[in-house]
Amino acid sequence: MKKLILAIACLINLTTGDYWTDREKLIQLDRASNIGSTLNLTEKETIADAFILNLKKQELQVGFNDPKKFPSALHFFKSRPIIETSPIFNIITRLPKGSSLHSHDLALTSQEYLYNQTFRENLYACLTDDTLLLHFFNPNNISTSCEWTLLKDLRENRLDFEEFLKSKMSIVRDDPVKAYPTINEVWKGFQQTFRTVVGLITYKPVFEGFFYQALRELRDDNVKYAEIRGYLPHVYDLDGRLYDEEEVVGIYENVTRRFKEDFTDFVGAKFIYAPNRRVTNNTMEAEVQIYKKIRSAYADFVVGFDLVGQEDKGWPLGDYIPQLLEIRSAGGHFYFHAGETNWFGFASDEDLFDAVLLNATRLGHAYALLKHPALAEAVKSRGIAVEVCPISNQVLKLVDDLRNHPAAVMIADGYPVVVAPDDPGFWGARGLSYDWYVAFMGMTSKGTGLRFLKQLALNSITYSSLNATEMAGALKQWKVDWDDFVDGLVRNEYFGYNEVLKVV
Amino acid sequence: MKKLILAIACLINLTTGDYWTDREKLIQLDRASNIGSTLNLTEKETIADAFILNLKKQELQVGFNDPKKFPSALHFFKSRPIIETSPIFNIITRLPKGSSLHSHDLALTSQEYLYNQTFRENLYACLTDDTLLLHFFNPNNISTSCEWTLLKDLRENRLDFEEFLKSKMSIVRDDPVKAYPTINEVWKGFQQTFRTVVGLITYKPVFEGFFYQALRELRDDNVKYAEIRGYLPHVYDLDGRLYDEEEVVGIYENVTRRFKEDFTDFVGAKFIYAPNRRVTNNTMEAEVQIYKKIRSAYADFVVGFDLVGQEDKGWPLGDYIPQLLEIRSAGGHFYFHAGETNWFGFASDEDLFDAVLLNATRLGHAYALLKHPALAEAVKSRGIAVEVCPISNQVLKLVDDLRNHPAAVMIADGYPVVVAPDDPGFWGARGLSYDWYVAFMGMTSKGTGLRFLKQLALNSITYSSLNATEMAGALKQWKVDWDDFVDGLVRNEYFGYNEVLKVV
Repeated sequence: MKKLILAIACLINLTTGDYWTDREKLIQLDRASNIGSTLNLTEKETIADAFILNLKKQELQVGFNDPKKFPSALHFFKSRPIIETSPIFNIITRLPKGSSLHSHDLALTSQEYLYNQTFRENLYACLTDDTLLLHFFNPNNISTSCEWTLLKDLRENRLDFEEFLKSKMSIVRDDPVKAYPTINEVWKGFQQTFRTVVGLITYKPVFEGFFYQALRELRDDNVKYAEIRGYLPHVYDLDGRLYDEEEVVGIYENVTRRFKEDFTDFVGAKFIYAPNRRVTNNTMEAEVQIYKKIRSAYADFVVGFDLVGQEDKGWPLGDYIPQLLEIRSAGGHFYFHAGETNWFGFASDEDLFDAVLLNATRLGHAYALLKHPALAEAVKSRGIAVEVCPISNQVLKLVDDLRNHPAAVMIADGYPVVVAPDDPGFWGARGLSYDWYVAFMGMTSKGTGLRFLKQLALNSITYSSLNATEMAGALKQWKVDWDDFVDGLVRNEYFGYNEVLKVV
Repeated sequence: MKKLILAIACLINLTTGDYWTDREKLIQLDRASNIGSTLNLTEKETIADAFILNLKKQELQVGFNDPKKFPSALHFFKSRPIIETSPIFNIITRLPKGSSLHSHDLALTSQEYLYNQTFRENLYACLTDDTLLLHFFNPNNISTSCEWTLLKDLRENRLDFEEFLKSKMSIVRDDPVKAYPTINEVWKGFQQTFRTVVGLITYKPVFEGFFYQALRELRDDNVKYAEIRGYLPHVYDLDGRLYDEEEVVGIYENVTRRFKEDFTDFVGAKFIYAPNRRVTNNTMEAEVQIYKKIRSAYADFVVGFDLVGQEDKGWPLGDYIPQLLEIRSAGGHFYFHAGETNWFGFASDEDLFDAVLLNATRLGHAYALLKHPALAEAVKSRGIAVEVCPISNQVLKLVDDLRNHPAAVMIADGYPVVVAPDDPGFWGARGLSYDWYVAFMGMTSKGTGLRFLKQLALNSITYSSLNATEMAGALKQWKVDWDDFVDGLVRNEYFGYNEVLKVV
C-alpha cells in the first residue's frame, strides 16, 4: 500500500520535474523497498560498502564479459572453484552472518569431514539396490540383515573404491546435467545419499562428533547460532544399544552445551523436529506423540515442527490438519517446507496455503510463493520469514541460473528473507557463505552492497526462535563481531595482495 | 492496495472460521488477481473450460511423471515436436487469439516459407566471416562487393548444402546447449541469421510476398491483427533501384491493404519503427528525421517507435533522451524493449526506468521488471502492457525452464500482459500458438483454464494501438470468431479421435 502511494506520488511529481531529477527520484524510490535499504551506515561501514561495491562491480563485469565465469549463473558443481577464488566470497566468509535457520541433520558437515569418519574401526558396508549402506558393528555380532563386509577390506581390494565411496556420500558429479537429467533423478540420488550416510552418522561416537563439527564449521564461517531440522533416527552403540528420540535430542543438546563451553562466543543451537512427510495417519499419530515427548522434555531446545522430503511426491500438509493442530497445542512453532516446487497448482504448491493458515513462523523455501499474490502479501505483512536456500534449489533442479530465483524479487521487495544452506555437505558446500555469495552476486542489483548483507545477518537473528533475552544476547555478540569485521575490512586485513588493495 | 486490504480482511476472518472454509476462502482470494479471473463465462464457455482443464491436467500429469516430456520446461528446439502432438496446442491454434503485438520484420514467417524463396532465379550467395550473405542480382550486373556465386550452382556442387543453408537461415540446432554455451554465442548466431536473410527478404518481390505470407500465417493461426516492428532496410529491385524508408513503409501498407481485401475478416496491421539501438548521436538524429517523415506520411499506419538489438551490449535509452523526446513530439507512441536482461542494475536493466519515464505505451519483454517493485507497481497501475515473449526469452538464454519466467508472477498478479512471438521464423515457430501454449501450460496454475486464454486474447486487442473505431471493429470480429470457436469446441469438432472425446 505504501509502495503504491509512493509510486503514484512519484509519478504525479514526474510531470513537473526535470527528466534526470525525476529519473533519480524514481530509482531511489525503487531501491527504497530493497532489503537493507533503510539501514544507516556508520562512517567505517560506508568505506567498507564502497570497497565491497567496487569488488562486486569488477566480478560482475568479468561475468558480463564471459558468462561462463559468472558463478550465480552456473551449476554449483561448476561454480564452486570459481567462487573460492573470489574476493567477495573471502569477505563474506569473514562477515558475521548471524545464524543458520535451515539445514538438515544428516548433511550438516562438509563432505571431507564425513568421509574421514569412514576410516574408523568396525565400519561395515553392504551394497544393495544401487545404494551403499554403512554401519558399525561389533565384529562378534554382525547383523545378518545384509551381506556386510568390513569397509577396510573393500578399501584394500577395490582400486577405485575411494572414488566410489565418495560418490555415494554426496550427489556431486562431474557432469550434473548428464547425471541428473530431471528433478526425479536428482532427488533419487539425494535420497540414496541419505541412506548411505545415515548408518555412518548415527553411530554414537560419530553422531556426537559430527554435530560438534557441524557447529564448528558454522562458527568457522562466522555463524554463531543455528536451528537444525532433524528427523531423530535412532542412534546406536557398538554393543547394540539404541537411543530413542528423546535421548537423541538429549545428545544434540549436550553437544551444543559442550560446544558453547568450548567457544563462549557461540550463541547456541535449537532443534526443529522434522520427520519425513511420507507418513500415514497412524505414523503421523506417532510423530505427534514423539513431538509432545521431546517438547515437554526439552522445551527450550525443541522449538517446533516441520515435515520434510520431496514435496512434489505427495503427503501434503493438508492431509494432516488434525494432527498438526494437536502438535501446535503442545507448544513450539511451525517451520514448514512449503512450495518447494515448480508445479503450479499441485499439492506441493498448495502447501503454502496450509503453512500460512497453520500460522507457520517461517517457511522452508516457499519457492512458489510469488505465484500467489495475496498469500505473498500476507507472508510479507505478517513477517513470516522465507528461508531461501539458493544452491539447494539449483542443485535439486528448480532453477538453473540463480538470477531467475524468485528470491531476487523478494529481496528487492523487502520480504522477510533469510538465506540458508539446506544440505551443504551433500553438494560440496560448507557453512552459509556459498549461499550468501550466490545470492549477493546473482539476486541483488549491481549497486547493492553492505546494507543488504548487514540486514540479512540481522534477519537471521530476528527471525530466529530465540526468546527475547537470548535474542538480545545474540544481537550483542553479533554487534561485537560486526564491528570487528568492519574494522578489519577498513584496515584491509583480509587481503594480502595488492591487486585488491589498489581498488579502494 | 486492494490486494493488501483483502489479504488482511481474510486473515482476520481466519481466526474465527472452520479450517477448510478459511482455506477455500484464501485460495479464492489468491486466484482473484489472476489474469482472466474476473471474467464471467457463458454456459457454453463453462463446458469448454471444463474440457480444456481436463486435457490440461492430463498433460501436466504426463510432465509431472516424466519431466522430459513437459514442453514448458524443455528447450524449444526439443519441445516443439512434443507440443505439436498436444491436444491443448491443437485447441490453442484454433482459439481466436486477437492480435500479435511483438514481432520483428525479418523473422515474421515460418522458416519453411523463407527457405522456399531461395529457389528463386538470380539469387547469389557469398560466404564471409562465417556469415552467409544472400542477394539477388541481374546476372549482367553483379556487385563486386563480395565473391558472389549463383546459389543454384552451390546447390548442385555441395552435397550438404541444403543443411548448411538452412542452418544459416535459422538458429535451430540439434544440441542448443552445445551450440550456444552462453547468451553471447546465441546472440551472435541470431545476428548472423539476420545478416543472412536480409538480402533475401529485401528483394522487392520477396519482400512483398514475405509480408503477405506473414499476415497469412498469423491469420491461419487465428490472429487477426498485428503490430510489426521493423528497421526499414532499403528494399531493392533486380535493376538496382533502392526503395527508401518511406517507400518501404508504403510497401508494408500496400500489402496490408491487399491482404485485407483478400481476407475481409482480417483487421489489419500497423507499424512500429524500430531501428537498431547501435546508434550514435548523429545516426540517432537521422532516425528522428526518418521517423518524422514516415509518421507524417503514414500517420494511421506508423504508430510509434522502439530501439532493438541485444540490450545488454549497450546503447541504453538514457543516452538518447533529447532525440526520443523529439520523436515523441512527432506523434505516435513508444513501445520500448526494456529490461530484456538478467544483469540486475546494469544499463539494460535501467532501460526500464527510462521506458516508463518516457511514457511508453507498452514494454518489450520487461523481463527484469519485477526486480523493481515501485516501477512494477507503476507499470501495473498505469496499464502499461508487458509484451511477454516466452520462447524468445528461452532461446536467447534468459531462462531455461519457463516455469521460472517472471511472467508467471505477472499473470498471477494481474499485470497487463500480452504474449507474443518476437522472431518465430528464426527458431522454428510460427504464429502465436507456440508461445501461448508454453505460457498456458508453464506459467499458469493447474486450475487456470479458458478465462486466462480469453483475457489474453482481449488484452492483445485492448492494449493495441488501434483507435477507438478500429478497436470496436476488432473486438466485434473477435467476438464472432470466439463464439464460433467455443461452439466448435463444445461440439467436439476439433478432435477426430476417441481418446480425447471420452475425457469430456
